[in-house]
Amino acid sequence: MPYFDAASAAPLHPVARQALMASLDEGWADPGRLYREGRRARLLLDAAREAAAEVVGCRADELVFTGSGTGAVHSGIAGALAGRRRTGPHLIVSAVEHSSVLHAAEVHRDGGGSVTEVAVERTGAVRPSGYAEALRPDTALACLQSANHEVGTVQPVAEVAEVCRAAGVPLLVDAAQSLGWGPVEGGWSLLAASAHKWGGPSGVGLLVVRKGVRFAPQGPRDERESGRAAGFENLPAIVAAAASLRAVRAEAAEQAVRLRELTERIRARVPGLVPDVEVVGDPERRLPGIVTFSCLYVDGETVLHELDRAGFSVSSGSSCTSSTLTPSHVLRAMGVLSEGNVRVSLPSDTREEDVERFLTVLPEVVAGVREKLGAPASPPPAPAEDRTETLVIDAVGRRCPIPVIELAKAIGTVPVGATIRVLADDEAARLDIPAWCEMRNQEYSGEEPAPQGTAYLIRRTH
Amino acid sequence: MPYFDAASAAPLHPVARQALMASLDEGWADPGRLYREGRRARLLLDAAREAAAEVVGCRADELVFTGSGTGAVHSGIAGALAGRRRTGPHLIVSAVEHSSVLHAAEVHRDGGGSVTEVAVERTGAVRPSGYAEALRPDTALACLQSANHEVGTVQPVAEVAEVCRAAGVPLLVDAAQSLGWGPVEGGWSLLAASAHKWGGPSGVGLLVVRKGVRFAPQGPRDERESGRAAGFENLPAIVAAAASLRAVRAEAAEQAVRLRELTERIRARVPGLVPDVEVVGDPERRLPGIVTFSCLYVDGETVLHELDRAGFSVSSGSSCTSSTLTPSHVLRAMGVLSEGNVRVSLPSDTREEDVERFLTVLPEVVAGVREKLGAPASPPPAPAEDRTETLVIDAVGRRCPIPVIELAKAIGTVPVGATIRVLADDEAARLDIPAWCEMRNQEYSGEEPAPQGTAYLIRRTH
Repeated sequence: MPYFDAASAAPLHPVARQALMASLDEGWADPGRLYREGRRARLLLDAAREAAAEVVGCRADELVFTGSGTGAVHSGIAGALAGRRRTGPHLIVSAVEHSSVLHAAEVHRDGGGSVTEVAVERTGAVRPSGYAEALRPDTALACLQSANHEVGTVQPVAEVAEVCRAAGVPLLVDAAQSLGWGPVEGGWSLLAASAHKWGGPSGVGLLVVRKGVRFAPQGPRDERESGRAAGFENLPAIVAAAASLRAVRAEAAEQAVRLRELTERIRARVPGLVPDVEVVGDPERRLPGIVTFSCLYVDGETVLHELDRAGFSVSSGSSCTSSTLTPSHVLRAMGVLSEGNVRVSLPSDTREEDVERFLTVLPEVVAGVREKLGAPASPPPAPAEDRTETLVIDAVGRRCPIPVIELAKAIGTVPVGATIRVLADDEAARLDIPAWCEMRNQEYSGEEPAPQGTAYLIRRTH
Repeated sequence: MPYFDAASAAPLHPVARQALMASLDEGWADPGRLYREGRRARLLLDAAREAAAEVVGCRADELVFTGSGTGAVHSGIAGALAGRRRTGPHLIVSAVEHSSVLHAAEVHRDGGGSVTEVAVERTGAVRPSGYAEALRPDTALACLQSANHEVGTVQPVAEVAEVCRAAGVPLLVDAAQSLGWGPVEGGWSLLAASAHKWGGPSGVGLLVVRKGVRFAPQGPRDERESGRAAGFENLPAIVAAAASLRAVRAEAAEQAVRLRELTERIRARVPGLVPDVEVVGDPERRLPGIVTFSCLYVDGETVLHELDRAGFSVSSGSSCTSSTLTPSHVLRAMGVLSEGNVRVSLPSDTREEDVERFLTVLPEVVAGVREKLGAPASPPPAPAEDRTETLVIDAVGRRCPIPVIELAKAIGTVPVGATIRVLADDEAARLDIPAWCEMRNQEYSGEEPAPQGTAYLIRRTH
């Protein structure tokens, strides 16, 4: 039963399990105590910190362990903003950051701070010039992920760090997706990461604050973790996290080649196997294990469900999945199709035959969903004559992908030059109708408010 | 090698270990995902929540898991204060709360809130009337531990909850020390606890917020744990925590009898075995496994060190231990001797013969330390004649227990009625000199500022 959602959480690495077992016996006591059980725990904690720091490429006294990657991001952002309160209340983030970063930005905004979101290209990458333009005299902190969690695009961290450095602004890097693959290059100031992304246990994050970076931890503090992460250390899990980080790094070069070959296979073959698919994310500058694509005329939740039934666990940035009714902010910021979105993220033990089987199953699954939804099976018929008229499709109250399916069905029924006005109130339509036009080479003429929801205007061009 | 510091951290309960092992395989995935690994994780999480809620005596949807007991206390206090912001900014805590509560109170005070610390009796217990007097129209929240972590005294939670209920003020109970022993009685509103105190793994706390209690979580939030604890759930550890809570509860009645007998033995025999000892904490209303006593004329750190060499791991609220130079705030609030303080907290597998060996070793250890420090070995000689004069002892710059040792040596050299003026700048003297007077039936006449430090005045009465 192949699990293809390693970007959410990876199963425990064998080395992590072994380290966890060993330290349950040796590392349960309070490392702050002076008796032998405490000293033994302290030794384990110190060794884990040294090991993690070496892999990150920082000093051991710059690194603290937190209760989660999210906790590391929240504490890092709050502490860095407070440390530079005198400079000003301005925070810069990219539009495709992990929700933990965006939630922290929201809290900062609610507290009276200002936030600039740097836009991304269609590949999902920021441009360093986007950060340069966003920087202001009152900028306290900038944040950028090392690589995107939904589409795998690697960000130009070193270049952005240089831009920030020149302006005297610290850069916090959310390295959750990439730390297992390699160190974060460039002159960053703070770094956050999460152990369960690299095969470590859950319950452990890490926060690095470079010496010289102004940092004022927020909230109640205690004497643990240099006053930067309160509460009893999650020691056996910390030991396991450090051990597995070292282990996955040792295997990283070899694994990267192997996984990149497998994801490249998916990238290359899905568009031929499944009609009307958009593969998203940067084709070159990307993480080895992640590939993301969107399929027209299907909804993400049903595809996920059918793939699950066929034995494949993947995730989706489509609306209608889990509890959310809007497409992922990442796909939205990229301006790509969100309909039928599928993220495949391969764990390191993925077998070639499972990827092949996935490539066999996927077209059947998508075809099945499309059939059930009554999606247009073939391209629209040849145009009649070139006339100007308007057809209205009322898709108010209908969820994605129905508005796009109705549009695709109708386009062949109007003459070239005619306009179709799609009325819809599903947020996904705002993303998916223009994306459909781009994929189909039809003209998207914009949107306007309608009595209910929004009217999207499409002109048939061929 | 007997470990007698269970109140700091307990070794993993066998049931916890078993549950942890099993859920490492079953519960590593994201419980928010819809595929089978996610659903399996969700089932484990739901079952753990149900189990923990049943043991606590609350509804499952009132309980969330946090990254530590400290995290639960911090989030609970911040959320409850914010939820009742309109009522006012007043917070009530007891003077003997765990540092996590006091740190949260400090942050509240720094942010413009007001805090009342309710005093305790010499036993360490608060009086419900103390809370009644502290309540104000602008009181947003009151906090009380279920039992004290340093001396084991059980607090009158049900009575205090009633006082608070009558005033319409929610009571947050820090149940870290007692939850393994039994449910917290009474109409409390919020409850926090920590798994590694009951033999669960570290990295898990729990926060209960009763339905109807106004609560506004602070800081960045996500969709996990009802928006009350952000970050990926530490699932295997949560499963283990719930399993061990249920297991220790099932054994609690039997264990309580056994441990109470062993701590009673220490309480009863230490004063006979070691001269000049004060056993502290309530003799009746106390946790089964904790006994605390203070020994005149020794310093806590050396006693801990010597006991560790003899194979016993205990802790101390004396100054000069670990990084602190002041006696524990608990002993200070109780007004008891802090010198040579020793807390013995027995884990459930403590053997009778280890307690007996402790009772053999302790007198030797204390005698050895006293000899090295030149402590007075016998009571002071008979008085000469009744005269009024003053002897000055300059102990400025000398750390505890030297000021008390010098006082004890000098008392026999002055006539009855004479005054000794001890000059000292060690904070512990403020606690230990009056405590010594009480133990020795000498008159403590108070303190006054001195050019360096403080002058403590003692009148010889017999």
